Amino acid sequence: MFINNKNYRTVWMQDNYVYLINQQLLPHKFEIYQSKNHIDTANAIKTMIVRGAPAIGAAGAFGIAQAALKFNGDNIENFKNHVEKAANILKSTRPTANDLFYAIDFVKNKIMNNLNFEDAKKDSVKYANEYADWNAELCRKIGEHGNKLIKNNQNILTHCNAGALACVDFGTALSPIRIAHYNKKNIFVYVDETRPRNQGASLTAWELAQERISHAIIADNAAGFFMKKKEVDMIIVGADRIAMNGDVANKIGTYEKAVLAKENNIPFYVAAPLSTFDINSKTGEDIPIEERSEDELLYIHGIDENKIIRKIRIAPEESHAKNPAFDVTSARYITGIINLISFINTNIF
Amino acid sequence: MFINNKNYRTVWMQDNYVYLINQQLLPHKFEIYQSKNHIDTANAIKTMIVRGAPAIGAAGAFGIAQAALKFNGDNIENFKNHVEKAANILKSTRPTANDLFYAIDFVKNKIMNNLNFEDAKKDSVKYANEYADWNAELCRKIGEHGNKLIKNNQNILTHCNAGALACVDFGTALSPIRIAHYNKKNIFVYVDETRPRNQGASLTAWELAQERISHAIIADNAAGFFMKKKEVDMIIVGADRIAMNGDVANKIGTYEKAVLAKENNIPFYVAAPLSTFDINSKTGEDIPIEERSEDELLYIHGIDENKIIRKIRIAPEESHAKNPAFDVTSARYITGIINLISFINTNIF
Repeated sequence: MFINNKNYRTVWMQDNYVYLINQQLLPHKFEIYQSKNHIDTANAIKTMIVRGAPAIGAAGAFGIAQAALKFNGDNIENFKNHVEKAANILKSTRPTANDLFYAIDFVKNKIMNNLNFEDAKKDSVKYANEYADWNAELCRKIGEHGNKLIKNNQNILTHCNAGALACVDFGTALSPIRIAHYNKKNIFVYVDETRPRNQGASLTAWELAQERISHAIIADNAAGFFMKKKEVDMIIVGADRIAMNGDVANKIGTYEKAVLAKENNIPFYVAAPLSTFDINSKTGEDIPIEERSEDELLYIHGIDENKIIRKIRIAPEESHAKNPAFDVTSARYITGIINLISFINTNIF
Repeated sequence: MFINNKNYRTVWMQDNYVYLINQQLLPHKFEIYQSKNHIDTANAIKTMIVRGAPAIGAAGAFGIAQAALKFNGDNIENFKNHVEKAANILKSTRPTANDLFYAIDFVKNKIMNNLNFEDAKKDSVKYANEYADWNAELCRKIGEHGNKLIKNNQNILTHCNAGALACVDFGTALSPIRIAHYNKKNIFVYVDETRPRNQGASLTAWELAQERISHAIIADNAAGFFMKKKEVDMIIVGADRIAMNGDVANKIGTYEKAVLAKENNIPFYVAAPLSTFDINSKTGEDIPIEERSEDELLYIHGIDENKIIRKIRIAPEESHAKNPAFDVTSARYITGIINLISFINTNIF
């Protein structure tokens, strides 16, 4: 992705350091966090300096490489123990992110086959980069496919942040939008602010601003208004999990926007790699919905007039909140699922 | 309404003072603003110490009474000029609020018939109170009617603040909820936070907390989630304007929630007095929608850990917002309109 006209990834490795775009500070400050070892990288995952399943996965993979490179013992068995310990530390940061376990095991299993640890050290960097490259390429391909659905002069609405910041590069829902823009299509993006965590207003708007893609932030309440006025031509969102019948679990509010899209005859697309399909979920009803802390709704972060980041309470002291983090959208509201190898028409489900 | 176990109105008059619940400070501080003359009252309307059309109307009526009482000339013609001037000042505060003009003219026309200004002074207080009492009683009756629709153990969802704070007392959408609670019905209220101005999270939640009515604030994005889970039994909202075909203009997001209610077979009621019907609007398409400042979306108010009220920016510097303040909900999504003399089934339209 382009930031200040320079090409960046969300996370990368150079020498023994892992570099991460510090997402704790966005959209108010753009800073690269430099992690000096795997403990530091584990902390970056834990404290959400990096977030988004594929981005966390890549950070975990690079963390394994950092641990491998730091090994200064003298036999392969000690090396293996050292890496195994590092893997456990890195995995314990975000216990539910599947990509994290997958990426860490991918690098670990590749290097454990080596007979000497010097080769294993080199391989750790090679395979961590392979994971990151593979993820970036996968997202780019989603973008190439999705771009075919976007016509010139169209207005696209998106919800939450399924952008490059959540992946290694390109994003899922934002990838078709990016590729359309690179292909000089004239597009405009309606960005749902996406309460309660505001990933739309903070991360998606920031990514679009950096690439000079025309956009406006809207209240989640206004999405229906613009759909009814026929100012939205299509909707693209990401997915957290897709059931085998095509039901999609995604950020809270996705279901609302999908119902409104159907009511107004606007195509509603989900952009997600095949790995988002969960063979253990037959329908959306099998997907558990996480209830998160009420504080996400009752407090909010921003910067004051002196550019100081502050956290303020926006509700009465006596009131509580209910905060389901995701919802499930039935396949019947979804026009299609954009992925890297095909376009799935949800009528097949 | 009960606040700290004491009965209050949003605005009232005592001796020469107008007292207003200072809504600029809610929900963080409860303070009564004491206005010493009609200029002061005009400023209170302008700076939104008082907001909500009926509450503004009552403040305007009391402002006329303040002006009349302050007159210290010696003939009725000078008195009339003095009151006329005060009326113009009070009317110029919020140029689009119909209730304001109506209430001011109501008091003014009543007192201008007097042959001496001492009688006129007394009448000004009498008729300003009459306006306020009439409005409170009208809302109470909406509550009595609406209460008949609420069963014991029901969960009710509401959007924005159509509460006592927007009226003189009771509210419109919140009045049936209040009366049901006074009648010892066990109810639970889902409060849409109502971005961008958060009237739900700040004012509605505060009113409910004060009366100890069980409630939870939810993200506007989560309303559909709770409807789909059948955790919402009915929805009651207020209205800014109702067209002659039953289409309802109300706070942005109302349309979204009404479509979702229809999709999930949940009754959707609008509580509003007959004065909200606009004979000049044949359908919802005749109702102009105000586009308000983007800052309402890009900035937010709250209190920090030291209880200091702060305004912070929650979006990237480079991004803009679109901020339609209201939307129009077609009559076909509305189950009925609750008003003071009848219950209007929208099938008649």
